[in-house]
Order: sequence, then structure tokens, then C-alpha cells
Amino acid sequence: MNFNNIKIVLVNTSHPGNIGAAARAMKNMGFSKLALVEPNGFPSAECTARASGADEILKNATLHATLAEAIADCHLVMGTSARERKLAIENLDPRQAAEKLLETDVEIALVFGRERTGLTNDELAMCHYHVHIPTVKDFSSLNLSQAVQVLCYELCISAEYSKPDMKKQKQAFHGLASQEEMESFYQHFEKAMLEVGFLDPNQPKKLLQRVRRLFNRAQLEKTEVNILRGFLAKCSRDKG
Amino acid sequence: MNFNNIKIVLVNTSHPGNIGAAARAMKNMGFSKLALVEPNGFPSAECTARASGADEILKNATLHATLAEAIADCHLVMGTSARERKLAIENLDPRQAAEKLLETDVEIALVFGRERTGLTNDELAMCHYHVHIPTVKDFSSLNLSQAVQVLCYELCISAEYSKPDMKKQKQAFHGLASQEEMESFYQHFEKAMLEVGFLDPNQPKKLLQRVRRLFNRAQLEKTEVNILRGFLAKCSRDKG
Repeated sequence: MNFNNIKIVLVNTSHPGNIGAAARAMKNMGFSKLALVEPNGFPSAECTARASGADEILKNATLHATLAEAIADCHLVMGTSARERKLAIENLDPRQAAEKLLETDVEIALVFGRERTGLTNDELAMCHYHVHIPTVKDFSSLNLSQAVQVLCYELCISAEYSKPDMKKQKQAFHGLASQEEMESFYQHFEKAMLEVGFLDPNQPKKLLQRVRRLFNRAQLEKTEVNILRGFLAKCSRDKG
Repeated sequence: MNFNNIKIVLVNTSHPGNIGAAARAMKNMGFSKLALVEPNGFPSAECTARASGADEILKNATLHATLAEAIADCHLVMGTSARERKLAIENLDPRQAAEKLLETDVEIALVFGRERTGLTNDELAMCHYHVHIPTVKDFSSLNLSQAVQVLCYELCISAEYSKPDMKKQKQAFHGLASQEEMESFYQHFEKAMLEVGFLDPNQPKKLLQRVRRLFNRAQLEKTEVNILRGFLAKCSRDKG
């Protein structure tokens, strides 16, 4: 098994040991691409010790200032979430997530938040899907590296189980817009909404999140982004 | 979920942190019975720290001199193994193991060996089944607490999926727009595109079809239609 199109993204990790343990879990399951957003204590001896030999994953890990930067080259983004959020983005359990991820070969990001607080609402709004690991109600927070382990394991075993009827070809999403293109689109849309006086500049957040959610759900193709931006450009230009 | 008939047994654990992390993983997934065979450094501050609140599992853990003693009250014993052994005992992957475990309510032991060397052949011979977590070939040794996490998770999610009438329901999008509302939206969009000079009135068809395809894929909710129409209204109105 290899999962070269799937990048594990850890956001603002506090404990370097968790980064190391996550790298080990990744390597066990056949993953190699790790992206770190503003990690604490990386690289470090503790991180390397806990990686137990998954050194090249740490060595090749990319460092980023923001989640947006880390996922810029991805077409499909899944974010892990310990609780139900108000953003009504489709919630998957790990098995459902694995099923979706295995039927495509676009570039994918699997995003894990901070140890104590997870991903922010803004970060969750960047995701096409949320993944929730089932737990008991009153003790729902997994250790970060354990969450990475669970998702990597589920992908690994789901891949095993899906082999027999693997004739079902991987969906080719060749024309999907990248996250970078989507970001530009959202910024363009925001600008247009401000210009025509639809967006309240003092309270832009909720509306913008809803817009993201809608278009992330649709998983826009490049040509669709071009159509929408063409329309937005006309809307603003004529405004002078 | 609770798994009161399943006992997690850790044999000769070297690192107390792993015992704590295993306890946390157990509690997350609804397990409560922990048995320790000759553990090192238990109880200890490190163990408690890594348990992150799963203290009562540590407090209630039973201590044993041998594996035989720890599993004396069990009817079904599964031992985890990182490699194929010569002993011709049936090997299961975690999903197959979960299936077997969930169809019975006898007392069960799920046994995990030493960090470096796993279970001895004598210990493996005490098991009814061996469980092997799938990994890549050349990096097959999971951290002990990660292995506990994987098995507990697999039991937890397999239990979810095996609930009789729990065929995972599709998410109910109660607020979906009706076809009538969608038609009005498409007409509104067409009008706006004509007004700003984006749509060629002589060849409108292809573009309109693409717009429909995009928004149909997204399955718009009523509130989303309202947001988009609010924006379109602003775009046209200001045109005067």
C-alpha cells in the first residue's frame, strides 16, 4: 500500500512527541507526506525519539505559516473534528471518509488540529468534509497521534477490503480546482459582495463561511471557477 | 457503547507512558477493564499523565504475575502479533477479529505483548486467535498504545456498523430547496448574467447548463438560495 496522494497536515501541534508518534503511525500504514503548520518544538530530540525510525517523514515534512498555505495544492480536504459544529458541513466517520478518499486520486489533505482545541471554525470551513472518530460521549478527545493512527489505519484496511472490487475505477477528478484557486475565488467573491453592498464589512464571517460551505460541497471544477469569476468580474467592473 | 466483557491485557510493558496512553485510548472507545502482567513503572506519574483523565482505568487495573493468571477468567483470548508465527493458529485482521468478538458476550481477553518483542510463542499458544494489524512490510511495529487504539477503535466502529437497523443513514438535508425554488434561482441568475453583460443572449445555453450542473451538484439549501439571490439582487439593483 502507498498513499502518495494523501498529505497528513498537523496544525499548531504543541507536543513534539505527538509529531514523532504521528510520523511513526503514518509510516506503519504506508503514508509519507507530512505538512506542519506552525509546530512547536520541531525538529527536536523528543520528536525524533517518538518517530522510532520514521525519520525520513520528519526530514521531508514541509513547514507552513497557515493551513491555507499547507493545503494550497490539494483538491480535497478533510478536517478532523471532535464535536459536532454549527457549520453544517457533511460529517463522516472514518470508514465513510476512507471510502470517499479511496475512490479518487486527486491530491488530498487530512487535517488534524491542536491537541486541546482542535481546528478553528475558520479552518474547518476550509474543509470539504469533517471526519469524526466515534468515541464515548464524555471522553471524546483522542491523543493527536492516536487520531492520526486511527485514520491511517482505516484507510489502510479499507484499501485492503476494497481490493476485490477495485475494478470500480478511481474517479478521475482531473479538472478539479485546487485549494489555491478556490481561495482566490473566495476572495474575489468577498470583494464583489462588499462592492455591491451585500456583505456587512463589520460582520462578514458567517456569510463567508456559508459561501465556502456551499461551494466546497459542490467541489468546483476549474472551468466552473472561471465562469463564476467571469461573472463576478462583470459585476464589479460595471460598478466602476 | 460499552465493552464490559472485553479485557485489555498488557504483558511486561516497559514504558509506563504506553500504559497511560493505552488507558486513554480504551476510555475514548468505551473500554474499562485493564489487566497488567508484570508492568514496569506502574503506577507512576508518567503513566497517569499520559492517561489524561482515564484515571479510574489505571486505578482499577489488575496486576498479575503471568499471562495465564490474567486471562484465567476469560473464555476467548486473542493475542496481537506483528508477524506471522509458525504456530498454526488462525490469523485475523482487526476487522475480522471485531466481527468474532461482537457476536459473543463471553469474557474476552485482548492481549498485547512487549514493546520490542511482542508475545512469546508460549503466550501466543494460549490464544484462540492471533490478530495482526495490517502495515507496510518493512516498518511493521506499531507503538503499543497505538495498537491498543486500533483494536479498540475497530471494535467501536464495527459495533456501530453491526447495529441491526443502523445502516448508516444518509444525512438528512431537511432544509433543501425545492425544484421550484431552484428554477426561480436559475432564472434570477440568468437575468443577472444578462444584465451585467456576461451572458451572450444569442448563445446562452451552454453556460446556463454549466451553472445548473454546478448548483445541482451542491444540492442547495433554502437559506443558501436566499443568500445567492440576495447577492444577485444587489448586483442588478445597483445597475439601475
